[in-house]
Amino acid sequence: MWSVEEALNALRSGTPVLLHDSSQREDEVDMVFYAGRVDPDKVYMLRSRAGGVICHATTSTIVRGLGLRFMDELFESVGGAYSRLASKTLSYGDRPAFVVWINHAKARTGVSDDDRALTISRMHDVISTAWRGDVSRARAVFEAEFQAPGHVALLASRGLSRRRGHTELAVSLALLAGLEPSVVFAEMLARRRRLALEEARALAEREGWPLITGGQVEVACRDAGVEVCWSH
Amino acid sequence: MWSVEEALNALRSGTPVLLHDSSQREDEVDMVFYAGRVDPDKVYMLRSRAGGVICHATTSTIVRGLGLRFMDELFESVGGAYSRLASKTLSYGDRPAFVVWINHAKARTGVSDDDRALTISRMHDVISTAWRGDVSRARAVFEAEFQAPGHVALLASRGLSRRRGHTELAVSLALLAGLEPSVVFAEMLARRRRLALEEARALAEREGWPLITGGQVEVACRDAGVEVCWSH
Repeated sequence: MWSVEEALNALRSGTPVLLHDSSQREDEVDMVFYAGRVDPDKVYMLRSRAGGVICHATTSTIVRGLGLRFMDELFESVGGAYSRLASKTLSYGDRPAFVVWINHAKARTGVSDDDRALTISRMHDVISTAWRGDVSRARAVFEAEFQAPGHVALLASRGLSRRRGHTELAVSLALLAGLEPSVVFAEMLARRRRLALEEARALAEREGWPLITGGQVEVACRDAGVEVCWSH
Repeated sequence: MWSVEEALNALRSGTPVLLHDSSQREDEVDMVFYAGRVDPDKVYMLRSRAGGVICHATTSTIVRGLGLRFMDELFESVGGAYSRLASKTLSYGDRPAFVVWINHAKARTGVSDDDRALTISRMHDVISTAWRGDVSRARAVFEAEFQAPGHVALLASRGLSRRRGHTELAVSLALLAGLEPSVVFAEMLARRRRLALEEARALAEREGWPLITGGQVEVACRDAGVEVCWSH
């Protein structure tokens, strides 16, 4: 059993944190990095050791400041086939956290480890600028330097009071660590299925990667009084 | 050096085909399957042996019949930040082929090999229905059974006369094989970079997977007089 403090130290130092949401929800473990520490080797680790879709998450407030909204909201406003596709929820009942898929404009094709690390690092700079309060500069850089549709999924957290997915939990973890709300993660997959919690625990022991649960993150947010975890 | 005929046989039997676009373009090798043969083991192969983004491609005519358009077109019509993101092209000058990211509504979270194989198989059924001419039934099933945004990228080919990307080449390969225009592929990645053509050739020899080039596909479409390869 790992402590939240161990996970926060791992996050700060660029070590992966394994994050299990809840047996009542996806019941899935994601590999999470602080985006400010992502480099090509970490993108390689995400695709070779986790295997899911590589996502960069921040808060919905920052995403709206950049002139974007949740993709399901966008699709509902477009109407037609798009709104019918967006009207369905996932098996566990939540709305998807997807916003848009992006490339940094200097990426070659967008998909190599080098390219995805470039996209993530520059997007982290944009998020950090917005988090420091300079939203108009963040938006100008975002619009000038990024291209869509691309190869890195940008996600937005709705805050833990509204959704308790990996997006909200991982963003909360960054906030608990005193970092910008800017995290990168992918689902941990076994062949044909998700990695079971017990398998993830064994891996965490072997590799020295902290494994924590959504319940631990919620308790830590409450104890530390980090209001912004709940609504952003 | 493999023949196009060997690649067509591989495609029909569910063996991967390695497809190199051109040294003048992405200079990238993708692993391609006929979508009608995709099962969870093939999704696992795509993510563990190729490593790029797992995409399902068909023709732009079929995509429009389903009530969808290219995502960059959609973004341009939305305006604001979206149109500025969509106004940039990739380093090699092409518009992106992305349409929408989907899940089958019966998928659990959408990302496991089982879930992505389910999404691809059911989407293949929709594409096949449209290809046989029953577009209204295809659209009804698509709207009833699919959810977006999800975890499998749906791409559309513009035809070889307008674009010579993996999307157009792989869809043309399926048409040359007498199959529905319904293919699944991912970019072949090495650590930090794309797999070089010579590395892909060595892999193709070792595994018995045909490796062909975009130039070979174009010549075969011309020789066989398959008009639909050029414009759809």
